[in-house]
Amino acid sequence: MFPAPPVSLWPDPDALGAATDLYQVTMMAGYAQAGKDRDRATFEMFVRRLPDDRSFLVFAGLEQAIGDLLRLAFSAEQVDAIRRLPALSGIAPSFFDSLLSLRFEGDVWAAPEGSVVFAGEPLIRVEAPLSQAQWVETFLLASIGYPTLVASKAARLVEAAQGRPVFDFGARRGHGPHAGYLAARAAYIAGCAGTSHVEAAIRLGIPCVGTMAHSWVQAFPTEAEAFQTFAEIFPNASTLLVDTYDTEEGVRLAAAIEPPIQAIRLDSGDLSALAFQVRAILDAAGRTSVKIIGSGDLNEAAIARLVAEGAPFDSFGVGTDLITSRDAPSLSIVYKLVELNGEGRIKRSTGKKTYPMAKQVYRFRDAAGRFSCDRVTKADEKSDGVPLLVPIVRSGELVGPLPRLDAIRAYCREQLASLPEVLRGHDAKPLYPLAYSFALEAEAERLVPLA
Amino acid sequence: MFPAPPVSLWPDPDALGAATDLYQVTMMAGYAQAGKDRDRATFEMFVRRLPDDRSFLVFAGLEQAIGDLLRLAFSAEQVDAIRRLPALSGIAPSFFDSLLSLRFEGDVWAAPEGSVVFAGEPLIRVEAPLSQAQWVETFLLASIGYPTLVASKAARLVEAAQGRPVFDFGARRGHGPHAGYLAARAAYIAGCAGTSHVEAAIRLGIPCVGTMAHSWVQAFPTEAEAFQTFAEIFPNASTLLVDTYDTEEGVRLAAAIEPPIQAIRLDSGDLSALAFQVRAILDAAGRTSVKIIGSGDLNEAAIARLVAEGAPFDSFGVGTDLITSRDAPSLSIVYKLVELNGEGRIKRSTGKKTYPMAKQVYRFRDAAGRFSCDRVTKADEKSDGVPLLVPIVRSGELVGPLPRLDAIRAYCREQLASLPEVLRGHDAKPLYPLAYSFALEAEAERLVPLA
Repeated sequence: MFPAPPVSLWPDPDALGAATDLYQVTMMAGYAQAGKDRDRATFEMFVRRLPDDRSFLVFAGLEQAIGDLLRLAFSAEQVDAIRRLPALSGIAPSFFDSLLSLRFEGDVWAAPEGSVVFAGEPLIRVEAPLSQAQWVETFLLASIGYPTLVASKAARLVEAAQGRPVFDFGARRGHGPHAGYLAARAAYIAGCAGTSHVEAAIRLGIPCVGTMAHSWVQAFPTEAEAFQTFAEIFPNASTLLVDTYDTEEGVRLAAAIEPPIQAIRLDSGDLSALAFQVRAILDAAGRTSVKIIGSGDLNEAAIARLVAEGAPFDSFGVGTDLITSRDAPSLSIVYKLVELNGEGRIKRSTGKKTYPMAKQVYRFRDAAGRFSCDRVTKADEKSDGVPLLVPIVRSGELVGPLPRLDAIRAYCREQLASLPEVLRGHDAKPLYPLAYSFALEAEAERLVPLA
Repeated sequence: MFPAPPVSLWPDPDALGAATDLYQVTMMAGYAQAGKDRDRATFEMFVRRLPDDRSFLVFAGLEQAIGDLLRLAFSAEQVDAIRRLPALSGIAPSFFDSLLSLRFEGDVWAAPEGSVVFAGEPLIRVEAPLSQAQWVETFLLASIGYPTLVASKAARLVEAAQGRPVFDFGARRGHGPHAGYLAARAAYIAGCAGTSHVEAAIRLGIPCVGTMAHSWVQAFPTEAEAFQTFAEIFPNASTLLVDTYDTEEGVRLAAAIEPPIQAIRLDSGDLSALAFQVRAILDAAGRTSVKIIGSGDLNEAAIARLVAEGAPFDSFGVGTDLITSRDAPSLSIVYKLVELNGEGRIKRSTGKKTYPMAKQVYRFRDAAGRFSCDRVTKADEKSDGVPLLVPIVRSGELVGPLPRLDAIRAYCREQLASLPEVLRGHDAKPLYPLAYSFALEAEAERLVPLA
């Protein structure tokens, strides 16, 4: 047995069990009462539709999701409180007692973290006693959905920057103080070069980057004194923020500082025009090696435009857009029952068709090594292609150590490099072909009239 | 001294110090090296502009922010790791040693949680030694910004529902598994009637609500058996989800169940048309007291439309839109140095003007008790009106117990009831008048040429 990964963010591993929706607990109670709680269930997690303006996703968040899944438990206090919930009056005391020792004992298959994935294909498959598989739904969706949004956004930003490093500056705009940690990790997987988040950097080994805030400049009697003091204290790591009062004047001051600074950061105004001006001022002062970092509400379209215009930025810092996936802040990621005791299960709600049975995904590449199509099959069908879902957990224990962050990042780089040209770029359309096997289609057809 | 509020979400209170941006630590090192770390600084947190489609905000998140602020500390492991960061090479060892015992010892004024607030006015004022005030920026912004977004969204949803209860169903779509907890609390403050999040409900005393998922229906051989079993197990709390296979057929089954169910939930399709059909079927079966809950990607515009059409919904469950504040997933909330050792500080970056000096906000009401305008003054100016910012922390300790959640919610209800008519409704324009005092304008003018 391998130890659970160390990425839990929870105050008390014994208190994670209640991070779920009430209806999961209600259904667990009902399953127990109906004698169905140990039925063997298969649930699959998949994305219904790509968000607008996404042509692919980068699957992320697995390590934290699995680590916490293996720690999932109710505390005694939680069980006492759940016992008193009005919705559960009339449930036998033995159900609540059983929660005290409940652990996840099922199997999990998943796409490797950092995989490029698409809508309509299973990303995680959970096979477990029905109650356990139901319990984990809410928590698993929140643990995977958000990092996947951020990694997918990061891949777009990195692509737009065309080789210039992109840094995660998002911590302050995260949805709560934990989001910065999760986002820093997801962004690094998808190619960001570093993060400003100190805890994420030191705990995960991500390069830690930072410049200065306007408050530093304001804390000194003059901008010149602020710059001079900073350059003397940080002779090897001085990035000066030059837009506190007047950008052009700020750059002239920065260019004259001794010892020479490493970089300046532009955070407001017409970034393209300013970058050309600033570069000229720096070069005229002999500061040709001083780099220019762009920031200030950047997104992939703005970065692509700056790059296309040849604006002389050496790197970019992205905050709000990255950490909130601002143009697509939610993912239609769902977790659905597809098989129970070996029988397929489907749903037919308007616009919400699902395919029954435990599944596998096979990916195909063209002669150049680019992804050409994905084929979704029953899990036990034979197929050419490379299977996407691999075993992660068996009977509640890791089947092997999870990959290290650097390995996930390298794998993601290869995945992104394998994207067909038509899916790249911030304005690419979602054109990737995905097919379901004849056996799956037949099984779905067979179940529709029965449902 | 009062104990810190119990809302920390962090695994180790000693590990919260590094939930910050590197540049805060860099600047702290620089301030120490320059002998400025104990300079008395005043920072203020405010929102630059309201998000599009917001005419006001509901200020939330203060309890968690203050609780964690009072716990803020670096662990020994974090200090060791920070000591080795390349950006900080050359900094005297005494700085790193000082981090081990660093605590927030400053003063905090803030708007009461649940206040209706507007762009351009200070919401939190921090007066502390410069290094400490800098340290807390990232963490405070993330702790306040997100709950404020959710509470503001919740207020719009509740307004649109015109008295019908609105429930938070968002946990699975949060930005990471903690967001559900923060969102449940913020939504409840702003008028939501309950949450599906079990941990939030039991820890905060919020009504816990839930129905059933499609998987319950799919777990039984027939929909009829699934419904019957649920109704028997939960005779006083049966809400049936009727759209797994065919909504009309599902409702007919649900209407016939004995014992009679409490409610049905509609989660897909043309909700307005379905609700009328479903009501008719239920009424024809004598089930006039069975309620109808609407859910499925609802937002305030959709709810307002359903209400305007008279669709017979009794309540609404909102997930994604609420927990991500989907149409406005980020807030331009900032934290700026305004005063140092008694001297005003400003910034003049393009589009980012700030006003100097510690400030207070006075709110005025019209004869009907509705908010009529806010006036921002220097903190020591005399003014009519009711001051918005109240002392919360003095010298690193709470000045009194923070209000309980129910009191915050009641206060917020009064605040929302005091909104002028023109700011209500999901399509209201941001028309609230805000004025800066002559003394502040004069101080800003005086500093511009000096900067």
